[in-house]
Amino acid sequence: MTLDLDHTSLRQGERIQPMRDVKFSAILGNFGTCSDRFVNKGYSEQKSLDELFRLAGDTPSLKGVELVGTQHIREDNIKEVKENFEKYNLQLASIIPDHFSKAEWGKGSFSSKNSKIRRRAIDVTKTMMDIAAELGCNKVSLWLGQDGFDYSFQGDYIEEREWITEGIRDCAKYRSDIKVCIEYKIKEPRTHSYINTVGTTLLIVNEIGLENVGVTLDVGHALNCYENVADSVAILKIYGDKLFHLHLNDNYRLWDDDMIVGSVHTIEYLELLFWLDKINYRGWYSMDLYPYREIGAKAVVESIKWIEKFFEVIDKIGRENIAAIIKSGDATRTSAMLRRGLIG
Amino acid sequence: MTLDLDHTSLRQGERIQPMRDVKFSAILGNFGTCSDRFVNKGYSEQKSLDELFRLAGDTPSLKGVELVGTQHIREDNIKEVKENFEKYNLQLASIIPDHFSKAEWGKGSFSSKNSKIRRRAIDVTKTMMDIAAELGCNKVSLWLGQDGFDYSFQGDYIEEREWITEGIRDCAKYRSDIKVCIEYKIKEPRTHSYINTVGTTLLIVNEIGLENVGVTLDVGHALNCYENVADSVAILKIYGDKLFHLHLNDNYRLWDDDMIVGSVHTIEYLELLFWLDKINYRGWYSMDLYPYREIGAKAVVESIKWIEKFFEVIDKIGRENIAAIIKSGDATRTSAMLRRGLIG
Amino acid sequence: MTLDLDHTSLRQGERIQPMRDVKFSAILGNFGTCSDRFVNKGYSEQKSLDELFRLAGDTPSLKGVELVGTQHIREDNIKEVKENFEKYNLQLASIIPDHFSKAEWGKGSFSSKNSKIRRRAIDVTKTMMDIAAELGCNKVSLWLGQDGFDYSFQGDYIEEREWITEGIRDCAKYRSDIKVCIEYKIKEPRTHSYINTVGTTLLIVNEIGLENVGVTLDVGHALNCYENVADSVAILKIYGDKLFHLHLNDNYRLWDDDMIVGSVHTIEYLELLFWLDKINYRGWYSMDLYPYREIGAKAVVESIKWIEKFFEVIDKIGRENIAAIIKSGDATRTSAMLRRGLIG
Amino acid sequence: MTLDLDHTSLRQGERIQPMRDVKFSAILGNFGTCSDRFVNKGYSEQKSLDELFRLAGDTPSLKGVELVGTQHIREDNIKEVKENFEKYNLQLASIIPDHFSKAEWGKGSFSSKNSKIRRRAIDVTKTMMDIAAELGCNKVSLWLGQDGFDYSFQGDYIEEREWITEGIRDCAKYRSDIKVCIEYKIKEPRTHSYINTVGTTLLIVNEIGLENVGVTLDVGHALNCYENVADSVAILKIYGDKLFHLHLNDNYRLWDDDMIVGSVHTIEYLELLFWLDKINYRGWYSMDLYPYREIGAKAVVESIKWIEKFFEVIDKIGRENIAAIIKSGDATRTSAMLRRGLIG
Repeated sequence: MTLDLDHTSLRQGERIQPMRDVKFSAILGNFGTCSDRFVNKGYSEQKSLDELFRLAGDTPSLKGVELVGTQHIREDNIKEVKENFEKYNLQLASIIPDHFSKAEWGKGSFSSKNSKIRRRAIDVTKTMMDIAAELGCNKVSLWLGQDGFDYSFQGDYIEEREWITEGIRDCAKYRSDIKVCIEYKIKEPRTHSYINTVGTTLLIVNEIGLENVGVTLDVGHALNCYENVADSVAILKIYGDKLFHLHLNDNYRLWDDDMIVGSVHTIEYLELLFWLDKINYRGWYSMDLYPYREIGAKAVVESIKWIEKFFEVIDKIGRENIAAIIKSGDATRTSAMLRRGLIG
Repeated sequence: MTLDLDHTSLRQGERIQPMRDVKFSAILGNFGTCSDRFVNKGYSEQKSLDELFRLAGDTPSLKGVELVGTQHIREDNIKEVKENFEKYNLQLASIIPDHFSKAEWGKGSFSSKNSKIRRRAIDVTKTMMDIAAELGCNKVSLWLGQDGFDYSFQGDYIEEREWITEGIRDCAKYRSDIKVCIEYKIKEPRTHSYINTVGTTLLIVNEIGLENVGVTLDVGHALNCYENVADSVAILKIYGDKLFHLHLNDNYRLWDDDMIVGSVHTIEYLELLFWLDKINYRGWYSMDLYPYREIGAKAVVESIKWIEKFFEVIDKIGRENIAAIIKSGDATRTSAMLRRGLIG
Repeated sequence: MTLDLDHTSLRQGERIQPMRDVKFSAILGNFGTCSDRFVNKGYSEQKSLDELFRLAGDTPSLKGVELVGTQHIREDNIKEVKENFEKYNLQLASIIPDHFSKAEWGKGSFSSKNSKIRRRAIDVTKTMMDIAAELGCNKVSLWLGQDGFDYSFQGDYIEEREWITEGIRDCAKYRSDIKVCIEYKIKEPRTHSYINTVGTTLLIVNEIGLENVGVTLDVGHALNCYENVADSVAILKIYGDKLFHLHLNDNYRLWDDDMIVGSVHTIEYLELLFWLDKINYRGWYSMDLYPYREIGAKAVVESIKWIEKFFEVIDKIGRENIAAIIKSGDATRTSAMLRRGLIG
Repeated sequence: MTLDLDHTSLRQGERIQPMRDVKFSAILGNFGTCSDRFVNKGYSEQKSLDELFRLAGDTPSLKGVELVGTQHIREDNIKEVKENFEKYNLQLASIIPDHFSKAEWGKGSFSSKNSKIRRRAIDVTKTMMDIAAELGCNKVSLWLGQDGFDYSFQGDYIEEREWITEGIRDCAKYRSDIKVCIEYKIKEPRTHSYINTVGTTLLIVNEIGLENVGVTLDVGHALNCYENVADSVAILKIYGDKLFHLHLNDNYRLWDDDMIVGSVHTIEYLELLFWLDKINYRGWYSMDLYPYREIGAKAVVESIKWIEKFFEVIDKIGRENIAAIIKSGDATRTSAMLRRGLIG
C-alpha cells in the first residue's frame, strides 16, 4: 500500500517495505587518519592495520572492506590481512591497487611517458588481482588518479589514452575470474584526468571489450563533473551493463570533498538508490570518505544509516508510484511526492 | 519536548511547534510564462495582469506579491493594480523597478557610461518608490542585472562602482519611508555583475550609510557564488542588520536555475530557516521562480509547502538542540540530528 | 610607439603569414540581434534575412554560413536563401534543424515523452537534410537542447536515451549523403542535457554505427564541462574519427557565454588549433557567438582574426617543436615555448 | 624560423624593455617539494632550509622571499634565517604565520570553538610579527585556511566571525609598525572558509578599523570565487586602499591549482597588471606556487618571466590607449587591441 499519487497524500495503513539485503562496505582507510596538502601528517593519530580492522569489525551493518595497495595490502602482509578478515568476519569487497600514492606515479602510471613505469603499473595490478583472488574476492578497482595532465601542451592525448587501454586490457586478460573496475574522476590530483567521466570511461571499457572490465562509480566524482548520478547509473546500464562497483560519499559538487553520505545531497541520493534498484545492481555499497576532522568510524556509521533511511523513503513512496511520476515528467508532482515521502 | 541529543533519538510524545506566522509572497511573474534565449516567446501562453493576480489570489498561504516595473506596474496602470490587490486581498511585498528588461539598459543602468541612462535609472527608481508608497508598501528591491561587464578591459571598475553608490544613495535620500533593498547576483545577464556577493553588497550599503538601504538576499544567487546561505544571513546580521528582503528558489549551484524551493537543497534550506529565525527575520518569504515548463501556480504552491515542512522539521528537532549541536561542531552528531529530524 | 586604436583594421605594411586554407563560416544569426530571458525582444533591432546575408557577405575571410531552421531556413523560403548564397558567393556550411526554439519542443524533441513530438523531430530533421542537399551542403548539425531534464525523478534516462538513438539513426539512414553531426552541451536550456559530453555523445554515435553520424564540437560547450578541448578533439579522433563539425566561441568556463573567440582563452585555443591540425581536421571553422551587446559582424571578424593569429603563433613555434615539448611533458619548457611564441 | 626550444634561456640579442622596478618575491616553499592528500611525503625529495635559500638566491629578478611559520621560520632558527637573507642578498617580503599546517588548527585557529586555541593563534601571530620586525620586514600575511566549516549546522557564523575580528584586531594593535595582511580564499582545506571573498574580507578589515590591517590578494583565490581579479584590485582601492600584498599563480578557476603564472590566464593577467599600476600598487609581486611535478625554481622563473612579458605588452599598447578603450566599453575594440598588443 503506497502513496496515492492523484491526491499525493499518504494513504492510511501504509506498509513499509522490509529492507533488502544491501551489502555495505568501506575503504579501510575511512577508519584512520586523513592528510591534505597542508597537514601532511594527518589530522589525527595514525592507526595500525589491526586497529583499522577492529574498527571496521565493530561497525554495525558493515559486511566488507576495501583495501588500498601499499597502505593496507602488500605481498608481505597477506597472512596478517587474512587473519583480520577472519577475526572480524568481514569480506574483501575489492582491492584498489596503488597507482597514485607514491612519487614514482607522479606523472602517470598506465599512461606514463616512461615505459618502465607503465610496465610497473600493469605488474602491480596483476599482483593485486592475484592477492584479491587469494583473499576470496573477485574485484580490483583501478583509480588512475595520476594519469592525466596539469598544463596545456603537456599530454599526448592519443598515445597516452591508448597506453591506458592497452595496459588495462593486458591486466584484464591476465585472469578473467577477477573483475577490473575502472573508477573515473574528472580531476585531482592532476588538474585533468584521462579517465574523467562516465562517457569516456565506457568508451575505454567498450574498446577493451572484455567481460571482466567494467566501471566503479564514485558518487562524489559523478557530482564533480555535473553528472546526475542516477543518469550515470542508467548510462552504465545501457552501454553494456557495466556498473560493477560503487563508492559512496557526498560533496558540494565542485570538489571531491568525500563527506558523510547524505550530508549535502538528499534528493539526488533518493533518486540514485531508486535507479540502482531499477537496474538491479547487486554489488557493494562501499563508503569512500575522507573524515579529516571527524571520527572515521562514526562517519561510516552515519553514511550507512542515511542510506538505510533513504531506502525506507523509497519503500514508503513505492517504486510503482515513482515510476508513474517519472512517466508524467511533471516536476510539481515529483516535488509533492518527495516532500511527502521525505517529511510527511 | 524535543530531541534528546545525547542519544539522538526522538523522544516519545514529541511536541510539534505550531507554525509561526510566516508571510509568503511571490513575484507576480511566477504565475505567468517564462522565456529564455532560445524560446523568446515563452514556453506557455501570455497571461493578462488580471489573470496573474487571480492565480496569486487563489494560492493558499500567499499573502503578498512583488511586482516588476514595466511588466506589472507602470505609472499608467496603478489604479488597475490597486483594484487587483483589493480584490484578492493581497499585499504588495515590494516593487522591483525595471533596470534590466529593455535594450536601453543593456550596458548598464546606474553604472552606464552614458550619464542620461544613469539619470533615467535613478528617476525610474524614484517613480517606483512613489508608487510603492501609494500602494501601501515600504520596499523597492533593486536588481541591477545589467550593471557589470562581459569582457576584460570593458569596465572602469572604480568609476562605475562609484556611480552605483551615488545613484542608490540619491534614491534612498529621496524618501526615507521606503526601504531600498539591493539584490546581488554574481552574473547573468552580464558575465560579471558589479553587485555580486553578500560582501561587496554590504560594502556598498555601508558606504551609502543610510538606514533605509539594505539587502535582498536571493537564495539561488547566494548558492551561485558558493556562499553558504545561512552564513550569508549571519553576515547580513553582523554588518548592520541589513537583511531587508528574501527571494526563495533553488538551483544546481552553478546557474540561477530558479527552480522550485526544496527540489535540490534540503539540508541548506533547513539551516537557512534556522538562521532566519535566529537573526529574528520578520520580512517576506518571497518566491522568485522561473517555472519554464511547469504550471507556475503549482510551482509556487510546492515551494511554500516545502518551506512550511522545513519549518516543521526545525520545530521537531528543537532550536535549543540545534544550537547545542552547532556549539559542538561535531559533524557526525549533526548528521544524526538531521537524519532523525528529517526522516525519523 | 603604441598601437593605433582608432582603427580596428590592420595597419599598413603589416605582414600576414600565408595562412593554410582554413574554411571560416558563421551561424547567420551571429550578425543579428540576441535575446535572453530578461530582454526577450533582443538587445538590438531585428534584421531581415537579406540583411543578415549581406553582412555575412561583407565579412572578410568568411566563406560559409550555417542556417538555423525556422529562423533562417524553412520549406517556404528555400529560393530566397539560395539566391542569397549565390549573390554573396557563400557556401552553406550546415543546417541546424530547429529542435529548440518553439514551445512545442519544451519538454524534448527526439526524447519527448510524447510520441507525436518525437515523430515531428525526426520529420523536421529529414526535411532539413533534403534542403541541405538541395543547397549543396552535406551536413546537418543536431543540437537537442531541450532533450534532458530539469529535476530529479523527471526523466526516464534509459527509455529517453534510447529514443534519441533510434530517432537519429532513423534520420541518418534516410540519406547517407548527408552527415548528421550531433552537438553536445552539458546544460541549458535544461538543467541537464542528455547529450552532454564528448564521451556520452560518442557512445550514441558509435551505437548508431553509421558512417554519416558524427559529432559537432562546440568549444564553449567543451569548456563548460571541464573538458580540455584539445583532448576532446583527440578523443573524437580515437573513437571513430568522428569530429565532423566545429563551433567556435569563448566563455568563462561555467556558462555558455558565447563570446568572441580569444577573448578569454588564449593558451587553450593555441592547443586546440595544434590538435585540429594534428588529427587532420579539414572541416569548417564556424563561429557560434551571441554578441548581445556588440555589433555582430565585428564580433565575427574579431573571432576570425584571433584564429588566424593563433595559427601564426603555432606556425612560428613550429609543430615539431611543439610535438617535442609534449613528448617531454615538462610544464616549464611548455611555459617558455608558449611565452616566446606568443609574446616574444 | 622557429624558436630554439632546447634552451629555455633568452635568445642572444633579444631586447628586454626597461622594466619598471617590480619587486618580485616567492614563498620559500615554492623551491621545495609539494605534498597532496595522496602523496603525503611529497613528489620530490625534501630540501633543507639552506638549499631552499640557495635556490631562491640563484633566481634572476627575485629580490625577496616569504617565509611560512613552523616550516621556515621559528623562534629557534631566526639566526640561521637571518644569515641566509644576508648571504643571498634577499629581503623578507612577509611572514605567513602557521595557522594551518598542524592538526591542532584542524577545527580553526582564530575562530576555534576552543578558547585556548584562539589564544594560541593570536600568540603565534604576535611572535611572528616580532620576528618579522627583527628581520627587517613590516608585514605578516594571515591565511586562516582552517577557519571555516565543512558541514551545514557546524559553524556559529556570528560568534566565530566575531572571534576572528577580535583576534586580528588584538594582533594589529600589538604593534602598529607591522602590517597585518588578511588573505582570503573561498575554500580548502575547509569546504567553506570564513574569510572567503574580497567583499567579506574588506568588511572585517574595515570593522577592525586600523591602519595597519589590509588584504593579501591571491590571484588564484580570486579566480576561484569567480572574481574578476582586476575588479578585486579596484574594490580594494575603493574601500580603504587596502591592497597590501599580492600572491601570484594560476589555475583553472574551479580549484586552487597554484600553477605557473600565465599558464592559463593571459587576458586576465594583462588586465590585472594594468589595474595594479592604475591603483599605484608598489608592494611585492610574490609567487605562491605548488609545482608538484615541476622543478620549483624553474616554475618561479617562468612565472616571473610571464609577468615581465605581460608588462611589456601593456607598455606596448600604452596605458592611455587602454584607458580610452575601457571608456568606450566596446568589446570588439578591446579584442583588437589585445590581439595586436599580444600577438601583433
